[in-house]
This record gives sequence, structure tokens and C-alpha cells, in this order.
Amino acid sequence: VIHINGDRLLSDLRELASIGKFQTGVDRVAFSAADIEARRWLVAKLQAAGLDASMDQVGNVLGRYPNVASAVLVGSHTDTVPKGGWLDGALGVVYGLEIARSAIEAGERLTTGIDVVSFQDEEGTFLPFLGSRSFCADVTEAEIAHCRSRDGTQLAKALATIAHETPPLRFDAARHLCFLEAHIEQGPRLEAARRRIGVVSAIVGIRRFRIRVRGRADHAGTTPMASRSDAGAELIKLAAWVGEEFSRLAGPDTVWNIGQIEFRPGAANVVPAEAEMLLEFRDPRGDMLDAIETRLLERVSAPQSRSCKIEAEQLVRIPPTAMADDLRELIATATTAAGEQPLLMPSGAGHDAMVLARFVPTAMMFVPSIGGRSHDVTENTSDLDIVRGCEVLAAAVSELRRKLSNGRAS
Amino acid sequence: VIHINGDRLLSDLRELASIGKFQTGVDRVAFSAADIEARRWLVAKLQAAGLDASMDQVGNVLGRYPNVASAVLVGSHTDTVPKGGWLDGALGVVYGLEIARSAIEAGERLTTGIDVVSFQDEEGTFLPFLGSRSFCADVTEAEIAHCRSRDGTQLAKALATIAHETPPLRFDAARHLCFLEAHIEQGPRLEAARRRIGVVSAIVGIRRFRIRVRGRADHAGTTPMASRSDAGAELIKLAAWVGEEFSRLAGPDTVWNIGQIEFRPGAANVVPAEAEMLLEFRDPRGDMLDAIETRLLERVSAPQSRSCKIEAEQLVRIPPTAMADDLRELIATATTAAGEQPLLMPSGAGHDAMVLARFVPTAMMFVPSIGGRSHDVTENTSDLDIVRGCEVLAAAVSELRRKLSNGRAS
Repeated sequence: VIHINGDRLLSDLRELASIGKFQTGVDRVAFSAADIEARRWLVAKLQAAGLDASMDQVGNVLGRYPNVASAVLVGSHTDTVPKGGWLDGALGVVYGLEIARSAIEAGERLTTGIDVVSFQDEEGTFLPFLGSRSFCADVTEAEIAHCRSRDGTQLAKALATIAHETPPLRFDAARHLCFLEAHIEQGPRLEAARRRIGVVSAIVGIRRFRIRVRGRADHAGTTPMASRSDAGAELIKLAAWVGEEFSRLAGPDTVWNIGQIEFRPGAANVVPAEAEMLLEFRDPRGDMLDAIETRLLERVSAPQSRSCKIEAEQLVRIPPTAMADDLRELIATATTAAGEQPLLMPSGAGHDAMVLARFVPTAMMFVPSIGGRSHDVTENTSDLDIVRGCEVLAAAVSELRRKLSNGRAS
Repeated sequence: VIHINGDRLLSDLRELASIGKFQTGVDRVAFSAADIEARRWLVAKLQAAGLDASMDQVGNVLGRYPNVASAVLVGSHTDTVPKGGWLDGALGVVYGLEIARSAIEAGERLTTGIDVVSFQDEEGTFLPFLGSRSFCADVTEAEIAHCRSRDGTQLAKALATIAHETPPLRFDAARHLCFLEAHIEQGPRLEAARRRIGVVSAIVGIRRFRIRVRGRADHAGTTPMASRSDAGAELIKLAAWVGEEFSRLAGPDTVWNIGQIEFRPGAANVVPAEAEMLLEFRDPRGDMLDAIETRLLERVSAPQSRSCKIEAEQLVRIPPTAMADDLRELIATATTAAGEQPLLMPSGAGHDAMVLARFVPTAMMFVPSIGGRSHDVTENTSDLDIVRGCEVLAAAVSELRRKLSNGRAS
């Protein structure tokens, strides 16, 4: 069994949080000076712990456990959203560091080690999951060539700043037997349920649509109601229908959001000529996503409005990602053994684990987010929860190494 | 009876439309070079017709009929919205010019003449109804000092460019016995009813509100629906309620509009923390406006949502303006005499007549807008309708002069 050092874990997390510190949080967007500094810090920490570590030309950091034929891959990402929190991503990476370091210190001889990874640009400053996709050789040259950040910077230009680093580090199917990613929950469910450990059942699928209504601009004083083609009123009816109908269709884990509405021309005294909204819905079950999408598209194409045209454009279609059953159970068992009751729950947000799961058995573990906050400087988790999470993951990794050193991953 | 010259009327309208021509329309916003040029053109035309005409320091143009003790004031405005049409305002001004000119040419001797006016900035590039309010001595120094155009230009700076002109021309209660404003309808009602002349019953009152909902931003994937304070969803419910409830409350002339909606932060995957809309409603009856406002504010303050705060801020409150009954009847009679059937209708848009009506008996007459279009380069009215409108107004002015020259305005 690996005994982690809780004080050292917290100290490392705080040291990492000082790189790109912003108010009570961190601003360490991918490829920024702070991001690269944090990655170099991680390489040094991994090397000091006895791992063979480097950063590659994409910004991925991999620490390879010494003298083993195979490894449990543990990690997450160290980049953040702008003005983000100190734990989103960093937690899972420093868990990996602390667990591998503790294992090396314990001197236990097993054929399966612990490799530690920090993927680049999970948050999509340029390309979401760039690092984990590169690691799995799942990015095309064309994608990189066309990709720009929101502020217009070319990804190619950002990559050029670290072109002298190690050639891309890749997932090694012979060595990497499974991937474990610990992460803050980024939601309120663990806190509400008074649990310390969430075991992720699946990462939800996401479907996102832009729905656009086209009518005709008219003077809002001189045009009688019956003579209008009011794109705004039509969109409001549709949006209200979404609220009612999705509530009726939803399963226990379904969520949806209308995050943006825009009317054009957008003046108080002009009937809107165009109105559009961004609508997304998420669920861990593909059949639920299908059912909701079918109903939505039926409504959009129904001739309920004869005066306006409605179109739905699909912007995002990400399938749900199941977690490996045996790894999930292993984490749940380790949780119970630590005296905690695990909460089985979907991940409502995307993670690098989504990418890795296509190539290797993968599981995720959550620790509570205070007030459900994340992507903000108020993001936090109690020290006790942070340490307990690492202890549970260390126990799961121990058990996994023991099993894998006797055979292969299931 | 005054016999107007239809060809001359159309020729003058087209000449005026060439000043600030933009595509098939006109861009002649208040105080622009084109606007001032158009006003100087009007002064010259009025002088050539035999009126005593000048432009004042605000940009108002007044032509005084010669050798009379009193006058019917006829006119509108020559400024336009950006990229506007050729008739909005110009029509009523050139009607005044043509009617006064024809009356002088006819040589009829009456004690009541015809004064012609073009008010400044009816369209509110700086301050809506600046000209008619200045004419009625109804603008404060403070309003002018604080007023800026949308692009940030100070009204004071615009006024400085014509500071050398005549001191403010003012409404003269002893001379100006009534005000008649002809205007394009800017809506589809005359066309739909196949009528050439609209007689305005009243100018609608306008109430405009900004309604703001405050909730809490949350990750739209990780936050269960029941844990959200979704300002966007709450605003959508309220907006849908407006559509249903206002339809129920509305009278035959009630119109309303939700012209703008904004969600913040406005990202697909973030539950809106704030949502607001601009809602206005108009009606010629004050009691109808009161009834709608009462219902709206009841709904806004009802505790229907416990998770979000809703506030309504009143931005505009303009009372309805009744037109003078006897003047209305005079125009209706002139219409019937011309072989046309008048349509009694409210004006859904504001006009300078709204300001003048507070000081002097006032009436308005509409001619059809093709397709209901206005505030756009496609704004148009058939030549026949333009000429017929001027003939009807000339007949009404003739009758009015005859009556007023025998006594005083009612």
C-alpha cells in the first residue's frame, strides 16, 4: 500500500498555484508563460521524485516510472481557463506526482509502475483536449493549421514557441495499461450529498445547436401585431417550449442550457428580424440524447409558425463516454475501505479521460467543489477532502499495480 | 380653394431627396452637412414662394406667410434616420411649402395665412423632437448640455456649428392657431385597407421597460437543473407570459415588442447569471396602458421564481396624445369631398405633433407606405398617393383658413 504525504501534496499544489497566480485563483492558459513555467516545474518535480520526465513539443509532460515494463497512467492537465481556479486539472496531476513519488520512496518492487501526465490545453484556449489527443495520435495537421485562439492567435504560432522540446510523447499501448484521472467535481452534488469521493459512471455526451429564426424587421409602433413576422416572439415560444418539454423528457442525469440569445437588429422599437439561441443538452445515455434531439428537431420543423423560418444547426455532437467497470469498482472499493461512502455519478463536464477512454481502460474520481464553483477564482476544495481524495486514489493505484503486476489489465 | 401643383410638389420632393441621397433613400441625420443643406434649400424655396423664411440656431426652419395676423402652421421635419427614406418628414414639409406657395399664387386675401415649418432632429440623432420642443420653449439648458448622439458627439458641439443663425424661432400663440402635420403612415394599415388617407385619432402612448433577471452563473454540464438559479430560463418564462397575457389584455390598437434580449455571460456551457429584455407597449388609450403596466408589474414582483430576482426599470413613459376633434373632422370631410374614404387610425409612432398638441390644436394626416416600409431606403409612396394627400390637406387648410379668418380657432 502506498502511503502518501498529505502535507507535501498540499504544499506542492500551493507551489503550483503560485505560478500564474491571479487573485485567489490562477490564470495559466495553454502556452502562456505561466503555463510553460508550470510544466517545467512539474518536469523538475517528477525528476526529483525519480521519474524520467520531459515536456514535448505540444506541451504535454510525461513522467515515466523507473525500471518497470508497464504502468498505470495517472494525471490530468495543468492549464486553466482565463482567471480560473487553482485545482481544476492541477489536482489530478499533483495526485499523480505524490502517488508515484510515495511509491518510489516505499521501494516496493512491482513490474507495473505509475506514469504521471499533464496534458496540454484541456481547456481549449486553442483546441480542447489538444494534449490528450496528441498523446493518442488523434490530431490532424490540418486541425492544427487552421486553429486559432479566441483572440486570433494561431495555434501553429503558439506551438512554434516550444518547437525545440522533445518530439511528441505518445500513448504506449504496451506500457500504459489504464488511465486514472482525479478531478474536482465542478458541481454541487458531492457537497449536497455530504460525500467526499465521487466515482464517475460515465462522461456525458453533449449536443449543441444554434437555432435561428428569421422574420422581418418592422416598426414596433406602426405595425399591427397580426401583420408581423416577429422572429423574437417565435424564438421565445420555442425557448419556453424547450423548458417545458425537456423537463418532461429528461432522465435523472439530463441537463440542458440556453446560454445565449441574440435578437437583431436589437432595438426596443424594432420588431426583431432575426433571433437565435445556443441550446445544449447533456446526458450519460446516448438513447436519451437521441430522444431529446428527435423531439427538438420535430418542433423546429413543425409548421407552428407560418410567418418565420426556423433552422437548427448542430454545433457539437460528443458521444457519452463510459468508464471501465472494473476500474470504477476498484475506486469504489478503495473509497469504502477508507471509511468513505462513494457517490456514483456522471461527469457533466468533458475531461481528458474522454479521449483516453477510446484507447485504454479509463476511470475518473471526483472530490467535492465548495459551493460547486469552478472556472473561477473562488474554486476551492477543503484540505481534508484534497488529502482524502489522494489517499483513496493511492489505495486504488496500489491495488491496481498489485493486480496488473500479476497479469494484464482487464 | 387652393389648387396645388402636383408635378411641382413631386419635383420639389425629388430635389430635396437628392440632398444626402443614399442608394434609393436619404441619409440626412440632424446637423449633418446634408441636413443643414436641406434646411437652407427649404429657406430659399419658401422665400421664392413669398414667405418670410429663416433657419434658427437650433436648425428649425420657419416660413411666415406674408401680410396676415394669424396662420395655420403646416409642416414636419427634414432630418432622417441614418440610411433612411426620402419621405419620412420631408413629405409633410413639402406639402406645407406647396400649399402656402399655391395659396400665395392664387392671391386670395384672408387674415389667416399658412406658416410652414421643418423641425430639427425629430428622429433623435441627438434629442428626439429637439426642434419642436425648442419651438415650444420646452427644452432645458441642462438637457442640451448633457445630450450626446449615439456616437458620442455632444449636442452642444453640433449646435455650435450653426450658432450664427437666427435666435430661436418660437411658437406664437397669437399667430399660430393650429398645427397640421402630414406624414407617411410607416405601417401597413392604409395599404391593407386600400385607403389613400389616414386621419389620426391619437398618437399612441409608449411605455418601455428594461426587465432584468439576476441568477447565478453555473457550469451547464455539472450543475443539476434543480440546483440552478437560471436567469435566462426565468426571463424566457416571463417573455413567453408577455406574449400570452398581452394578447389577452390587448385592445384593437395595442401593440408591444420585445426588441432586445441579452444573456450574460452568454456562453453555451454557462447557465446565464443575468438576463434582460427591452419590452415596450403602445396604445392610444391611457387606461389600456395602465392596465397592461399593472399586470406586468404584478407578474414581475410575484414570487414565481424563488431562485432569481426580477426587476423592472421604466425607461420611457409617453402619454397618448389626442388630436383635436374639429381638425380631425375637417380633414375627414376634405377626404370625402376628394372622393376618398378616410381611415380613422392611431399613429403608432411618435411625431412632432405630439409636442405641438400640448400647446395648440393639432391634427395629423397619413398617406400610405408601400409595404409598410419606413426608416429604410425602400421607404416609398406612389406619386398618385403623394399628390392626392397634398390635395386633401390643401382643401382642409382652405376650409380652415376660411373659418379662422371669420373668427378664431376652436
